[in-house]
Amino acid sequence: MTGQEIRDMDLTYNLHSWSKQKGLNPVVITKAEGIYLWDSDGKRYMDMSSGQVNSNVGHGNKDIIEAIKEQADKYCFISPSLAVEPRAKLAKMVIDRMPDNMGKVFFTNGGADANENAIKMARMYTGRYKVMSRYRSYHGSTFGAGNLTGEPRRYPLEPGIPGFIKFFDPYVYREAISFASEEDATKFYIAKLREQIIYENPSTIAAIVMETITGSNGVIIPPKGYLEGVRKLCDEFGIMMICDEVMAGWCRTGKMFAFEHFNVKPDIVTFAKGITCGYIQLGGVAVSKKIAAYFDDHLLSCGLTYSGHPLACAAGVACLNYYDKARILDNVNAVGKVLGEEEEKLKAKHACVGDVRYIGLWSAIELVKDKNTKEPLVPYGKDEGGTMPGIVKSLMKKGFCTYSHENMLLVAPPLIITKEQLLEAMQILDDVLSEVDAAIGG
Amino acid sequence: MTGQEIRDMDLTYNLHSWSKQKGLNPVVITKAEGIYLWDSDGKRYMDMSSGQVNSNVGHGNKDIIEAIKEQADKYCFISPSLAVEPRAKLAKMVIDRMPDNMGKVFFTNGGADANENAIKMARMYTGRYKVMSRYRSYHGSTFGAGNLTGEPRRYPLEPGIPGFIKFFDPYVYREAISFASEEDATKFYIAKLREQIIYENPSTIAAIVMETITGSNGVIIPPKGYLEGVRKLCDEFGIMMICDEVMAGWCRTGKMFAFEHFNVKPDIVTFAKGITCGYIQLGGVAVSKKIAAYFDDHLLSCGLTYSGHPLACAAGVACLNYYDKARILDNVNAVGKVLGEEEEKLKAKHACVGDVRYIGLWSAIELVKDKNTKEPLVPYGKDEGGTMPGIVKSLMKKGFCTYSHENMLLVAPPLIITKEQLLEAMQILDDVLSEVDAAIGG
Ligand SMILES: Cc1ncc(COP(=O)(O)O)c(C=O)c1O
Ligand SMILES: Cc1ncc(COP(=O)(O)O)c(C=O)c1O
Repeated sequence: MTGQEIRDMDLTYNLHSWSKQKGLNPVVITKAEGIYLWDSDGKRYMDMSSGQVNSNVGHGNKDIIEAIKEQADKYCFISPSLAVEPRAKLAKMVIDRMPDNMGKVFFTNGGADANENAIKMARMYTGRYKVMSRYRSYHGSTFGAGNLTGEPRRYPLEPGIPGFIKFFDPYVYREAISFASEEDATKFYIAKLREQIIYENPSTIAAIVMETITGSNGVIIPPKGYLEGVRKLCDEFGIMMICDEVMAGWCRTGKMFAFEHFNVKPDIVTFAKGITCGYIQLGGVAVSKKIAAYFDDHLLSCGLTYSGHPLACAAGVACLNYYDKARILDNVNAVGKVLGEEEEKLKAKHACVGDVRYIGLWSAIELVKDKNTKEPLVPYGKDEGGTMPGIVKSLMKKGFCTYSHENMLLVAPPLIITKEQLLEAMQILDDVLSEVDAAIGG
Repeated sequence: MTGQEIRDMDLTYNLHSWSKQKGLNPVVITKAEGIYLWDSDGKRYMDMSSGQVNSNVGHGNKDIIEAIKEQADKYCFISPSLAVEPRAKLAKMVIDRMPDNMGKVFFTNGGADANENAIKMARMYTGRYKVMSRYRSYHGSTFGAGNLTGEPRRYPLEPGIPGFIKFFDPYVYREAISFASEEDATKFYIAKLREQIIYENPSTIAAIVMETITGSNGVIIPPKGYLEGVRKLCDEFGIMMICDEVMAGWCRTGKMFAFEHFNVKPDIVTFAKGITCGYIQLGGVAVSKKIAAYFDDHLLSCGLTYSGHPLACAAGVACLNYYDKARILDNVNAVGKVLGEEEEKLKAKHACVGDVRYIGLWSAIELVKDKNTKEPLVPYGKDEGGTMPGIVKSLMKKGFCTYSHENMLLVAPPLIITKEQLLEAMQILDDVLSEVDAAIGG
């Protein structure tokens, strides 16, 4: 099929996520290798969002592909009630990479259903029904995960599920007051959270669910001591601490899991994306030994046809092995350092760059009309002129493929990117940001 | 790894669905081919449940495996916002197999998230929030799908989502009164449903969600005219008719979709399982042209990282092609006739068989203590002695692999089963049912 035929067929028969369908004009991809994508005209793009921040090892990884082929020749699907080698192996490998308090894994197909099952388990284990999560979070779009979500993608799920409570995240950059220090910010947010827990009645709260580092809402990194503070509140009130590592986990931040930066051990960890880098869909929930033991004698009322899909697990085994073999963490830390330095330069240079936030190979560039007032480049939820899509399109034209969220650009390349490749990409970004500067008269 | 090593590792690190974990002793599967599974001791089983009623073409299907390998060499994952050939092709193939009112597809990873997205779309399209579904249904275990579900697997999701309303299904066998005819039963159920719609306020009801034929709760086939009746009510009140074809669809009943037996066109169809037979996880929602057109100018607020996963779609293309090429529907109708005849013999012969319900290669055998009183072999939700698992284990010992639900045994072999293979399996069932007869003194 030609590119045009594929595009036409795609638009005639497919519904695209998070869009009005009229006017869509998707690029047709016909080849992918390493950090690159190629369209049907042979034009090359750098995949600077790693797909949806899942293609951590890039495209065409031979180890994972061979593992898939080899497993496909044995068997693809076996019911989750039966035991198979790839599922057993991967569960062990996941737990081996987690803190020592973690016990067992329940596998799902992606991030949303990982969070769905995590809150179900926390409710069953605690016998409590309330679940607290944060504004400016994204946890998935199914009813449970979507009710956790604290941004407009939740709205179509209203009226909401009883007992899903929101609190504010530590978004220091846009707080109306400024804090004397990170420690002060933490003091404020933790005190506020404690107050809210008490007013909600702690004995009804099953879990606090957080993206360890807020991802699609703008790589919001918690201030020093914040996660330790949440951990202490959870301990004080018998609340399960659930870290959503769907985007943050599996080397993205320069550690295997983002919570390792903050010296905390969650009770429950949800994951997806980087466990297989999306070669085959896979997600899961890891729970502490204590929670796992509870389900020895209590019904685990969770299930899905494809829990622990063998072919997906085989891809996961190969993927986790590849992280080790290729020393991916070393590359993230080395090239991530360059990413941070380059983004600081962009911030210093461009009138339109209000803030840059980065950790490992994961970052967001927050665009403003005015650095001093911090007025966002587009109003929240209302980019009617299509300014941000326009910027994304300009980047795309120059071979830099990523996506935006509100007034923010995501920069999160595959973790195999070299310093040279990164610098090439940052030059494109630099050029496009100059265009934005010009547009705002900066 | 040895079988024992796999089992130990599995039990140490994996959480199994719908179970207390203590005492689990899963069979370790090391090989699968056609309708057969083999355990680590070389023992062979007939896969008489097609896994979870998803392995329609059995195991080791060369066409699907080759398609997966070929696609894996090109690319495995590309973001859903970009266009790729396998996704475009499969969407067209799905719509080509649907009634002429259907327009577009939104792909998911499985059945639960298909239903999640279906109800979201129905709500957005109608601007109404209530969703009606039935007791004795299973639609998945995430919060949205699980709130649709009308049996104990819903309980851990309570307090429920506002606006999720249940009505009774046409379970004629266990109705306290008996109807003069199927038509009479239909008259009763449709009148009752109409009454409930009116008392719920029709202008608030977005959708009625039904398994076209109730699956895991016991292959409950609607009486003549029932689905037409529901269709009429939906038309009268502007309610979306959503048929869950996750288990019933893709040839299982002897037609491509179960609703074809009943002369109705749904507004929305959800599917999973048989679209890929589970070789790779895939599900989806097909919507009418009218609904699709609505989303031309209105935001489709649905999305997941792995919507329309290219590798899964490539498996789907090969799978749908295989159904045609191997004339699977012909086999379902020919061997399905034998299945029905054999089950009628079992019912006539065994004191413990209260009812048999079958269509295509899909059936349930309802076990009772007494044919006249219809007292179920085990009380609802309370099989404390483990009677049903005991029966399943006896079958397993004789090489007949399936599962039970409440007092029912599922018989739903891969759609490639031959008459000879089926008769061999039915002989095992016959023997085990004789043991049950003896146990109840029948
Ligand atoms: C932090 C986080 N949690 C959950 C999800 C949902 O994952 P999925 O799209 O696989 O359902 C995402 C997706 O981007 C995510 O970033
Ligand atoms: C009718 C029906 N709908 C939905 C589902 C849920 O599908 P999944 O297990 O893929 O989430 C099932 C699973 O058995 C089903 O039978």
